[in-house]
Formats: sequence, C-alpha cells, structure tokens
Amino acid sequence: MEQKQISLNVIARLPKYYRYLQECHESGANKVSSSNISSALGITASQVRQDLSNFGGFGQQGYGYDVQFLLEKLRNILGLNETHKAIIVGGGRIGQALSSYSGFIKENVIIKAVFDVELSHVSAPKDIEILHVAEMPEYVKRENIDIAIISTQKEFALSVAETLKNAGIKAIWNFAPIDINLGDDVAVENINMSESLFRLSYKMKKK
Amino acid sequence: MEQKQISLNVIARLPKYYRYLQECHESGANKVSSSNISSALGITASQVRQDLSNFGGFGQQGYGYDVQFLLEKLRNILGLNETHKAIIVGGGRIGQALSSYSGFIKENVIIKAVFDVELSHVSAPKDIEILHVAEMPEYVKRENIDIAIISTQKEFALSVAETLKNAGIKAIWNFAPIDINLGDDVAVENINMSESLFRLSYKMKKK
Repeated sequence: MEQKQISLNVIARLPKYYRYLQECHESGANKVSSSNISSALGITASQVRQDLSNFGGFGQQGYGYDVQFLLEKLRNILGLNETHKAIIVGGGRIGQALSSYSGFIKENVIIKAVFDVELSHVSAPKDIEILHVAEMPEYVKRENIDIAIISTQKEFALSVAETLKNAGIKAIWNFAPIDINLGDDVAVENINMSESLFRLSYKMKKK
Repeated sequence: MEQKQISLNVIARLPKYYRYLQECHESGANKVSSSNISSALGITASQVRQDLSNFGGFGQQGYGYDVQFLLEKLRNILGLNETHKAIIVGGGRIGQALSSYSGFIKENVIIKAVFDVELSHVSAPKDIEILHVAEMPEYVKRENIDIAIISTQKEFALSVAETLKNAGIKAIWNFAPIDINLGDDVAVENINMSESLFRLSYKMKKK
C-alpha cells in the first residue's frame, strides 16, 4: 500500500503524536484540538495541522481531530498493527527488566526467549525461554524472529549484531552502550543512555 | 567560566563525540582523524572539523586530533568533571536495573537511595538506601541531591516530578513512559523507549 511521500522530519514527530493520542484515548477523549497537541508536545499548532494533514487528518474548526481516526492512521504508517516476535540477547539486569516490561504487549512485540552465556544467572517470566547464545542463530531462523533486543556488555554487542544479521534478523533495538549500524539490511534503533546522561549534565551546568 | 557561544546543533553532537573519543581512549589510541570520527558517527568530516574547531580542537594534517585534549575539553563543556548525587524514584525492575547499572560510576553520578511505596519489593546494592517516598523531599534537601531518576509507573511520574521540583532538585532523568517538562527551573531528559520502538517498527516496515 503506497503512502503519500512524507518527509523525514514529519516521520520523526509521528511517534510523539502517536503516544500523545494514545494518552488522549486512554483518558476517554474522542476529540483533540491542534492547540492541545501543540502545548503537550511543544510543537507549534500550525506545524501540527500541517503534519497531520499529510495523512488525511483534517481538524474541524472549534471541534478538533478525531482521536480514533488519527490513531488508526498512525498505527498503519508506523507498522504497529503487525505483531513482531522478539528475543533478548544478554540476560543481565537491563535484559531482565526488559523481559518483564509490560509496555511491550501494547506495542505488539512478543518476547519469546532470552539468550545468555550463563543461564543460571538469568530469570524471566515463565512464558519466555532462557537459552544459550550458541543456539541463537538457529532459533532466529526457525522461529521467524523479527526483532533482537541487545542488552549485552559493550564489548560483545557488535559481534552479536553481526551474528543476528547473518541469521536474517529484521530489526535490532540496542541498549548496549555502543552504536550499532548494520547498513540498509537491518533496521536499528540505539537507546543511548549515556548520551542522554551527558545531555542532562550539560543542561544542569547551564542552569 | 564563559565558553565561546556554541550553537544548539553542535551541542547535540557533543555527547556522540565524547562517547566515541572515550572508546578511542579505552582502546589505547592517542590520535584520531576527522575521517575516522566521521565514519564512526555518520557525520561528514568537514562538519566534524568545524564542530571541533568551536572548542579549540584543531587537527594536524596527516596526524589527527589529540584524543586526551578533546576528551578534557568535552568533559568541561558537558560538566562531566563534576560529581552528582542522585536518587531513583520507583524501585520496580527498571529502577533496580538502573541502581546497579555500572555505567554510572564512570559518568560521575552516585546513586544514594531508591524510593518506593512498597519497600519490601525493592532490592538494591548495599551502599544504596531503600526509603519510602514520603521521606523523599526532606532527603533531597538534606543530602543535596542533584539528580532524580524517575522510573515510576506513568500515572505517578508527573506528580513525583512536581514534588522533586519543589524540593529543589536540579535535574530529572525520566524513564517513565510520559514526557516530563518542568520549564526552565529543572533540567530534564526523557528516555522515550516507546517512541524508539515506534521508530524501529516504522523502519522495519520500510524495508
């Protein structure tokens, strides 16, 4: 299904719109105005109107946008109406925290297994398997795993990512403190906690 | 100490430079070229040279930049040469994972206590106190806490942030799945895990 071409700047804001609209929906709101969206997200109201018009969202004067309609549009564009199977690589505290992070279910990501080299150190909810990393490539192929969440130590992250790429993984969500880039074949998001902490330090210093 | 005014676009890249230079340093490199930095970070080499010249980093032709010199400059600008006392609010799995996240020490953040409403559910390394949230405002003032790491459920995050602001906190590092904004008084960094997952889903869909 071909979408109208949407610029990368708009794309970068879509997750913010989606999250805010989810909040509106959860609190029972059917309609939301561009000025509400604007003040919640710190984006100008005219920018909001322009962004939303890109995918057929047109607010009515004095009435606002239909929350359900926009959520459905955004779910389509962001691919959130598809369910993805995922594994976690690295069963330390971050990996274990992620394995029981309730937010996943809502986002249609199902954690199937946690991989580590020291199985005795790892615990996970009982519907999630705990397996040795040696079994990982075979498992990814056999179970059609889409997403790998990497939460290993820094020194193992890049080789784990390469192994996953060769096993045919489609996406990597990386929590190890080193940027992963696998070219055009694999979608990657790096959660840079240390960079965020550096920014926080900088902002504090400026106060 | 007044720095030469540096644009916000440059500031946004400084944490990336810092993290990459740390890696160079850890691997024993004394010099690094702008083209190495460029390919590691996906920034053009001319942009790298322009950025680094802002704070007195001038590479030598065929020789490169002095890693130690740039690290020291960046530590100063980012405020990483100061030590900060921090607390964690919300002792669930994410909070507990953060309390034992080894990366903190290096970034000069010392976790002093974890606050929750259900103390019996919380464990933490033995040099970190576990306390009830009712004691939090008093503790923040008495112990001169700079940074609060919020890892509560979404519905408590905003009121916890307000309480911390009133207690005089300087910075909030937020892991709850809702954006916190406290105006100009408090430095805030939001780690938006769900937005990152939405972006990953979008990139996967585009493959």
